[in-house]
Amino acid sequence: MLVQGKPHRTIWLKDGDPKTVQIIDQRALPHDFVIEDLKTLDDAIRAISDMYVRGAPLIGATAAWGLYLALGEIESQGVSSPLAHLHGAATRLKAARPTAVNLAWACDRMTARLEGKASGQAGGLLAAARAEAEEIADEDVEICRKIGINGLGLIEAIAADKNGAPVNILTHCNAGWLATVDWGTATSPMYHAHEKNIPIHVWVDETRPRNQGASLTAWELGEHGIAHTIIVDNAGGHLMQRGDVDMVIVGTDRTARNGDVANKIGTYLKALAAHDNNIPFYVALPSPTIDWDITDGCRDIPIEERSGHEVTHIFGKSVDGSTGDVLLTPVSSAAANPAFDVTPARLVTGLITERGICEASEKALLGLFPEKA
Amino acid sequence: MLVQGKPHRTIWLKDGDPKTVQIIDQRALPHDFVIEDLKTLDDAIRAISDMYVRGAPLIGATAAWGLYLALGEIESQGVSSPLAHLHGAATRLKAARPTAVNLAWACDRMTARLEGKASGQAGGLLAAARAEAEEIADEDVEICRKIGINGLGLIEAIAADKNGAPVNILTHCNAGWLATVDWGTATSPMYHAHEKNIPIHVWVDETRPRNQGASLTAWELGEHGIAHTIIVDNAGGHLMQRGDVDMVIVGTDRTARNGDVANKIGTYLKALAAHDNNIPFYVALPSPTIDWDITDGCRDIPIEERSGHEVTHIFGKSVDGSTGDVLLTPVSSAAANPAFDVTPARLVTGLITERGICEASEKALLGLFPEKA
Repeated sequence: MLVQGKPHRTIWLKDGDPKTVQIIDQRALPHDFVIEDLKTLDDAIRAISDMYVRGAPLIGATAAWGLYLALGEIESQGVSSPLAHLHGAATRLKAARPTAVNLAWACDRMTARLEGKASGQAGGLLAAARAEAEEIADEDVEICRKIGINGLGLIEAIAADKNGAPVNILTHCNAGWLATVDWGTATSPMYHAHEKNIPIHVWVDETRPRNQGASLTAWELGEHGIAHTIIVDNAGGHLMQRGDVDMVIVGTDRTARNGDVANKIGTYLKALAAHDNNIPFYVALPSPTIDWDITDGCRDIPIEERSGHEVTHIFGKSVDGSTGDVLLTPVSSAAANPAFDVTPARLVTGLITERGICEASEKALLGLFPEKA
Repeated sequence: MLVQGKPHRTIWLKDGDPKTVQIIDQRALPHDFVIEDLKTLDDAIRAISDMYVRGAPLIGATAAWGLYLALGEIESQGVSSPLAHLHGAATRLKAARPTAVNLAWACDRMTARLEGKASGQAGGLLAAARAEAEEIADEDVEICRKIGINGLGLIEAIAADKNGAPVNILTHCNAGWLATVDWGTATSPMYHAHEKNIPIHVWVDETRPRNQGASLTAWELGEHGIAHTIIVDNAGGHLMQRGDVDMVIVGTDRTARNGDVANKIGTYLKALAAHDNNIPFYVALPSPTIDWDITDGCRDIPIEERSGHEVTHIFGKSVDGSTGDVLLTPVSSAAANPAFDVTPARLVTGLITERGICEASEKALLGLFPEKA
């Protein structure tokens, strides 16, 4: 989408330098727009684990490009078995973040495809890895575009009853184009509505502790010209009570076979409030984030526990223009930091996928994805 | 309660200087413990409007002492009608914060009592004002102590089933002794349990945007030696889902006749989660915060809308030891900041008052306060 008026993706091969992958260092947003070079597998692992990049689809794309970079290192490292090297790299990449299911998906797809082609020669593997990583990125863009087209209809239906007043959409965290390769998942219907001149206004949950809403979603909506207002995570329930929210659209890191949805911590609270106020609550998801092996998401999706430092400190910009962390809490107080929660399917109005919209249930999901039955 | 090992209240007449009221400047917590002198009505108004002090009971006590300070200014300002001066001061104090019902309550009580005694002589009024302000403060301490005694039974009942494991209590915002004159409301049962050596652990919601939980509740619990863990406001629902919360106790700024509870923004979301997970949700309140004139809290309690600056900026301590605000959001993004929400009575397990515990309903409240029928 647009940054400073120009179209961007979140990951790409550097122009004129096929040994370098480029990403946006999202940790510097919204204060600074920084492009980061990834030249090695370690760079890619650090980009994922230290959250230069985040969001399930972008993590998947970064892992794919990380395997490409790993194969590029074979010559300099004197590797005897390229395939063993590839598998070792995939294992390390998969460990970089435990919750994102399409981190593993992208690694497995890359290794399966490259094994099939394996002449054993690193050069051929490298070209195949590049082609596959590009295909994974392009497929993600296409999936997100289709999610947007499918979700657009929901916004149009609400707009039809509003007499030209903006459709108020609440979102949590960043399931925007910054979390994918382009378009985003939860934001894709918003961008499509904006392109069709349907008036929308987005309530952006700041999304503590990492503030992806306040720093990323607000930034990308603003850069693209979409009206939005930042609120603290506590405020959404009240806005729903007073009728200022027409619909909720969030993303997901992992959706279980039964329609339970793991997403950024706090999503469950917004789903409860939407349910209590009879407001539709939609989850936008690319199908690679569906974990068909988990039949009960509330019971079985593991929840990443992150450092308490993310709670006790926050990143911001001082009046002198410098950026850094500030301490928010008493030095002697402990902090806990579960990074995700699971919203039970009963609170989800519908799942917006690239194949269409369905209820949050195994039966409905299998209706869209019969090959998983 | 204890600060650095010594008992404190939140507001008191300065030792040896009856023209000066002292408070804790709570804006500097948890980083610095600063005592502030109030010498004039304007000082008291600023202390309330700029939130040196906050919390309904403490705001009431500060208003009472503010009227005392106003009467002390009569001589220097050459006032001809002390009672008119008193009423003018009360009007200005009442406007300092719109939501706290016992701001008006304390002002009305002071003016009614002083009118009754009015000899028209400022000196007599001043002594009467001091006595009345001291009585309001002492009564608040006694009310909070009784709330603690009443709430203690709820904690003891849960502890009886936990085989010595700590009772996990979640609280939102600061309804601690810092919000009252001493003991606190929501925290009073916790302090009483601690004094009886019942093991407890408190989940402290940080409570964006002003972070009263992370900065005040965590600080006062820590100073008093109570085990606690700070969490972001988003985390409580997940902790309830996984069984790590035994009960919720929050305070309230205003409770309606029907049991609807206005409290810090985000309280409603925690009540929804507690209800969804069958966890008891209690509200601790001194009866002066009950607004008997409001029969439907969700419909009729006005919600203060505060500056968006509280959302876009946060107060913290830098690595260099300096404290100040940092910017969290894109410079061009708007922010909205409703300061309270209303939790409907149907989500409240019980109200803990100084007279006992009751259901959140008009009938049950009138059972405890029959004089309001």
